[in-house]
Amino acid sequence: MIKNAFYAQSGGVTAVINASACGVIETARKYPQQIGEMYAGHNGIIGALTEDLIDTSQESDQTIAALRNTPGGAFGSCRYKLKGLTENKAEYEHLIEVFKAHNIGYFFYNGGGDSQDTAYKVSQVGDQLGYPIICIGIPKTIDNDLAVTDNCPGFGSVAKYVALSTQEAALDVASMALTSTKVFILEVMGRHAGWIAAAGGLGKKNPKDSPHIILFPEIPFQPEQFFKKIDDCVKNCGYCMIVASEGVRNDKGEFLSATSKHDSFGHVQLGGLAPVIANMVQEKLGYKYHWAVADYLQRSARHIASQTDVEQAYEVGKAAVEFAIKGENAIMPTIVRTSNNPYRWEIGKTPLKNVANIEKKFPLTFITPDGFGITEKARTYLLPLIYGEDYPPYKDGLPDYAQLKRIFVPKKLNKLFIVSV
Amino acid sequence: MIKNAFYAQSGGVTAVINASACGVIETARKYPQQIGEMYAGHNGIIGALTEDLIDTSQESDQTIAALRNTPGGAFGSCRYKLKGLTENKAEYEHLIEVFKAHNIGYFFYNGGGDSQDTAYKVSQVGDQLGYPIICIGIPKTIDNDLAVTDNCPGFGSVAKYVALSTQEAALDVASMALTSTKVFILEVMGRHAGWIAAAGGLGKKNPKDSPHIILFPEIPFQPEQFFKKIDDCVKNCGYCMIVASEGVRNDKGEFLSATSKHDSFGHVQLGGLAPVIANMVQEKLGYKYHWAVADYLQRSARHIASQTDVEQAYEVGKAAVEFAIKGENAIMPTIVRTSNNPYRWEIGKTPLKNVANIEKKFPLTFITPDGFGITEKARTYLLPLIYGEDYPPYKDGLPDYAQLKRIFVPKKLNKLFIVSV
Repeated sequence: MIKNAFYAQSGGVTAVINASACGVIETARKYPQQIGEMYAGHNGIIGALTEDLIDTSQESDQTIAALRNTPGGAFGSCRYKLKGLTENKAEYEHLIEVFKAHNIGYFFYNGGGDSQDTAYKVSQVGDQLGYPIICIGIPKTIDNDLAVTDNCPGFGSVAKYVALSTQEAALDVASMALTSTKVFILEVMGRHAGWIAAAGGLGKKNPKDSPHIILFPEIPFQPEQFFKKIDDCVKNCGYCMIVASEGVRNDKGEFLSATSKHDSFGHVQLGGLAPVIANMVQEKLGYKYHWAVADYLQRSARHIASQTDVEQAYEVGKAAVEFAIKGENAIMPTIVRTSNNPYRWEIGKTPLKNVANIEKKFPLTFITPDGFGITEKARTYLLPLIYGEDYPPYKDGLPDYAQLKRIFVPKKLNKLFIVSV
Repeated sequence: MIKNAFYAQSGGVTAVINASACGVIETARKYPQQIGEMYAGHNGIIGALTEDLIDTSQESDQTIAALRNTPGGAFGSCRYKLKGLTENKAEYEHLIEVFKAHNIGYFFYNGGGDSQDTAYKVSQVGDQLGYPIICIGIPKTIDNDLAVTDNCPGFGSVAKYVALSTQEAALDVASMALTSTKVFILEVMGRHAGWIAAAGGLGKKNPKDSPHIILFPEIPFQPEQFFKKIDDCVKNCGYCMIVASEGVRNDKGEFLSATSKHDSFGHVQLGGLAPVIANMVQEKLGYKYHWAVADYLQRSARHIASQTDVEQAYEVGKAAVEFAIKGENAIMPTIVRTSNNPYRWEIGKTPLKNVANIEKKFPLTFITPDGFGITEKARTYLLPLIYGEDYPPYKDGLPDYAQLKRIFVPKKLNKLFIVSV
């Protein structure tokens, strides 16, 4: 009997996670003898638990194709991590019950390290609970911190946005600096790793070019060197452009940013580092400043997505389905770089256990000795990831993003399962 | 004897002010019998006072053409307003001395209301000091607050950026809202008028669409209605998307934002409204929030400039030169809307005295009765201004922006003129 498939988006969404969804659904449609219906979880794994399954077969080929161009998570995503089997067996039993009820034999889970852990657990408990299910993880995270894969879909587009915004804002600041703003701070994402902040340096070709300072989470904040460097830049270049990761910490390991709330995974929720630094600059040096916090704008900026990123996001989705059909299980497609110049890559694979909950660190060899810039090694790695533009179609001046009908599969279980969110 | 020309950029720069520069220079190059050299002031009018003149004839046709695609102010801009003739006669006398020394007979000044006032004053004092000079203002301001002209070059591109960023971030927030951020605040520019904030509403087609709330400087902040509306949105739509102008004030007329520094024109410098509002939301409603402050990113975002805006910016530059050659004086080219649907426009003109220091107000008929949205009238006016995309060329994943040689004209006056900035 042909099995149906379940696909879900997990964790923070990106400009290209829907391109992976597009790759999954378009590919599954090519194999009707192997995969029956493709159901998408509404709000990620929660949709499986609450039996809220979106029937993707109700969406036209045109709409599915348009997913490739659409940011956000078209089926809804969630920050919700399945606990271990011993801690919460009922949750897994219910999940398997839903899969049984809807004849689901494939589980495609599109997310970061936490999500690959979930996919790994599902692959284990399926066997343990007597309902074997093929589990394939699909990599996604702007944080670029998944292990094994050369890079993560979602990162390249944020990198491009940050590199380009830094360059554009610098042209603005440079042209006004004589009588106006002399110090500009762009706060970017990257809670624990400097991948995104590093991308801000890609537009720099000469020592006097912007950005003059990058603040990495990996380098404890050095106030004296920082203020001296700003002052030198203003005196020598007329202005100072700073890209700061939200995750910058002082030498005690405390976040410099003002707020320290927690998200539902217990991670510290950051934001508001730029005004903190701006105030310090004002007090210490007295220079006129401006600051920007890109926040979600950077990870939803599909309008300027990296073509490389879009292609890779699509291909890992496509490969996930192809691997599943070939009988592979408990793996994640990876991106393998085969050449830097010209940049070439291909799809590989790795067991989920190799990526579940493992965080790839930002290499310290990517940071210049003064702690404020990126090395050639970093540039060689990062630059190809922002290659190419992949513009969405426009209508009346705005991107014409996919709009799904979101028709739900009739529920089969007469059961209320409460997920506390 | 053929006279040379002086061109300068003034005030806050935009994504398209260089497109106007391109229009000025390319057009002047077509009339070598009427206009000799085209000199650009380094850092605006200050460059004229300090005799720092960039010789645009040293730049290739290709570089000048690339200005059309380049944000920021390629020759440097300034916030520096000439005082009245009676207050600072020496400054005008010196200006005229520089013009005489370099045989400058045309004065093209590219800026907002303050700059049109400067152009107007120069047109008057030239006569009074016995050195008649043709003065043409070229409109530019993201604030869209110049009188007479239907709209201002620079505004349409910010409007497009804000409309599109609102739409993209909303897709992100909507897909995560169940377990993550429920309230998102995007702070945009617009010190005194709601033009830019209003543009945030252009992606909204249905009542439940984002943005759910726009905060205008024209509407005193109404905390009770605001929090009720947020709560209703979260309950009915799952999330609440807010576009807030930096210029929002309370019912005493005080800015809500944290800082209240002053720029060199004595205007209050804003920034940081979004975190203030986010904190209020957190305290009052307890919803998880995120916020972004676009700041200079919005006005330098040439990568997603409005095609309409780029064309208009170019055409007002071109028209300025054509008017000058025809002997027009003390005028500013304007944009005249001749049809809404299809959108059609043409170039008109108005005496500088009609635009000098006059601020066009944002019409209250553009705001819905509840004070939180835009009307159809607003949409009809705003939408055509974001029509079309005009992508810059890319190289290695980043825009290939113009790089000028900036060769200075040898100084002829043996005089040090100190401009206090």
